Amino acid sequence: MTDLEMMGKNAAEAKYNLQALSAEEKNRLLISAAKSLCENTEEILKANGQDIEAARESGMHEGLLDRLRLTPARIQAMAEGLRQIAALPDPVGEVMERFVRPNGLEIEKRRVPMGVIGIIYESRPNVTADAFGLCFKAGSAVILKGGSDALCSNKAITGLLREALKAEGIPMDALQLITDTDRSVTAAFMKLNRYVDLLIPRGGAGLIRSVVENSTIPVIETGTGNCHVYVDKDADLTMAVNIIINAKTQRIGVCNACESLVIHESVRESFLPMLAEALRAHHVEMRGDERVREVLTDVSAATEEDYGQEYLDYIISMKTVGSVEEAISHINRYNTGHSETIVTENAQAAEKFIQGVDAACVYVNASTRFTDGFEFGFGAEIGISTQKLHARGPMGLRELTSYKYAVRGNGQIRE
Amino acid sequence: MTDLEMMGKNAAEAKYNLQALSAEEKNRLLISAAKSLCENTEEILKANGQDIEAARESGMHEGLLDRLRLTPARIQAMAEGLRQIAALPDPVGEVMERFVRPNGLEIEKRRVPMGVIGIIYESRPNVTADAFGLCFKAGSAVILKGGSDALCSNKAITGLLREALKAEGIPMDALQLITDTDRSVTAAFMKLNRYVDLLIPRGGAGLIRSVVENSTIPVIETGTGNCHVYVDKDADLTMAVNIIINAKTQRIGVCNACESLVIHESVRESFLPMLAEALRAHHVEMRGDERVREVLTDVSAATEEDYGQEYLDYIISMKTVGSVEEAISHINRYNTGHSETIVTENAQAAEKFIQGVDAACVYVNASTRFTDGFEFGFGAEIGISTQKLHARGPMGLRELTSYKYAVRGNGQIRE
Repeated sequence: MTDLEMMGKNAAEAKYNLQALSAEEKNRLLISAAKSLCENTEEILKANGQDIEAARESGMHEGLLDRLRLTPARIQAMAEGLRQIAALPDPVGEVMERFVRPNGLEIEKRRVPMGVIGIIYESRPNVTADAFGLCFKAGSAVILKGGSDALCSNKAITGLLREALKAEGIPMDALQLITDTDRSVTAAFMKLNRYVDLLIPRGGAGLIRSVVENSTIPVIETGTGNCHVYVDKDADLTMAVNIIINAKTQRIGVCNACESLVIHESVRESFLPMLAEALRAHHVEMRGDERVREVLTDVSAATEEDYGQEYLDYIISMKTVGSVEEAISHINRYNTGHSETIVTENAQAAEKFIQGVDAACVYVNASTRFTDGFEFGFGAEIGISTQKLHARGPMGLRELTSYKYAVRGNGQIRE
Repeated sequence: MTDLEMMGKNAAEAKYNLQALSAEEKNRLLISAAKSLCENTEEILKANGQDIEAARESGMHEGLLDRLRLTPARIQAMAEGLRQIAALPDPVGEVMERFVRPNGLEIEKRRVPMGVIGIIYESRPNVTADAFGLCFKAGSAVILKGGSDALCSNKAITGLLREALKAEGIPMDALQLITDTDRSVTAAFMKLNRYVDLLIPRGGAGLIRSVVENSTIPVIETGTGNCHVYVDKDADLTMAVNIIINAKTQRIGVCNACESLVIHESVRESFLPMLAEALRAHHVEMRGDERVREVLTDVSAATEEDYGQEYLDYIISMKTVGSVEEAISHINRYNTGHSETIVTENAQAAEKFIQGVDAACVYVNASTRFTDGFEFGFGAEIGISTQKLHARGPMGLRELTSYKYAVRGNGQIRE
């Protein structure tokens, strides 16, 4: 048995203890783990310093270094995240449905933990505490594979969390960290479907593609968002500008930011100049189709590639359409199934858009930036699912669970 | 673009028409498709005759030939299956939840079609109509890859169903059959995640393993069942015998049949002789552990392999335990996550068993044979899911759907 298989086996054993924990027991652990992170800030910072030093020596650029860097405030925020998870309702044990069959069988559909969850993520070490907290509260054991750049930080954080588990009498293997940075180990992790029930990649498009292509464990794809705002012929144009500026610029590098606009041709002349003024004031570069460029003559041409792109930058593509149907089919061709908005005062166009657009979250007259666990009222989230199986959109605690049927009889047999 | 990619693209286009169909439109199609199957029985039988002849020449044995063979009665049953699906409520459009956020956003969680579903199955040609009917009613396009032995039959059936679609003005590509029997095509089908949202294998353990290992499309595993009955110390022993005989022998080759018994040691002497008598009367071979064989001296020894085996035959393995906890851990070690039963009059033991056993359906005092879409009241089913992601247990129409969030605002932007 390899080290990795042993980790799988350990997690699979720990899951039986976890599923039997009460909400109080889980919350107590989360709060004591938060306390431990705060009390051992120095230890975490020291480990993080080693990561930073190594990364700097290997020439990591400042943007990535910043994602890797921990500070006392960031460690406080990690601890606060665990306390917030403690405050969320426990999804485990919820009776989702109950019905009685004509033969007297009482069938109860009951929410249960997933079992063992694997998470593969990139450099940010704050994900370590966050992912553990959510999976633990949802009653599952978790095996983490973080970025190798953050290995010292992740070891320090998981070490403290495992000590906190031990102190509460909970199996430490509720949380395990893969410390072997060899790529073959990550590849083998993706094949551990014997022990792991669900694998979630958190990171860039390349990581997600690699997991989807190689995993034999069921995967939930998260996080790529080529989100659109469609300005309908019946739009409130001032509202449309506000929503676009918010969706595009309120936070530039996130998956629910707007990357592409679709404009009804009948509002081209009235809308585009006011939009361009606002976008320019926010330093957003526009790339448009022919009909956009007839109105905004200094805008560069949008290519096919532009329409398919998640810029995560101060750039936006623009496409003109003749109808809501055409808007829907443009969006369905290029989007990533994340979040799409129509701005319209026309209820029929709104319903058509909701029905026709294939995405996790379809908005009418609101910013795409609301696709978020906190904004939906779910509390902390593990990510935004862009696939259709199991969970779609913000994934909170409930979306990290499964269910089972408990069936009670008095001797029923099948005829 | 390969033929297969073209099929994916066609299905992905058809799905937009399907998601907009009303329940009435879908039901009308299902009923006219059923009529067409009945009216064209001769054509289907002729095609099936070609399959049977080729299979016989290649030396297929009688059991498999029987699965492949269609008769007028079996074609009637296929048609009746479509009519039953027409009678089921339409899951699409159901509002699953609705809530308003403090900022006024109205969030509606709405049931939507999966999109494009792929199904890979083995020889039985009746699956063709059945799988189409369920996916169609659930609003999804379907791409089928049936066993190559049944190719002529499947071509005839899908040809008629596609004609029925055309006659109702629905895109024929709502149903497509992969007719290229080359293995490389099946392998490429499993990688078609660009167009296919869900892949369901229906067949033996080998097929399922191959799909899980090779698919980049999200998969739902179905159908392998190493199901246990645990006879607790507080069991009604007569009820236990009835349940075991039913679960083991009522239908021998199905995934919800019982394959293994777990017996509390305190009822060994009172229970095993009466059980053995009943099992022998049903020609079931017993394989037991040491403690079973102390009571039933002529029973052969069960090996590790026996405990892990889905016999689908007149054989049963038997294991003695000292507690309900030991029963749970034995079952969790060997089961396939399908269906498990405890026979007990002790409410505490029953709840422990429900909580502790990791399976889709956990029964108290009832036969495992009830794990079935019709028995659960879901109507026809596409299979029994043994994984934890998305759907667990019987998968009816509802389990073939996804959801989206429709969010209505009046200009909300994120602060």
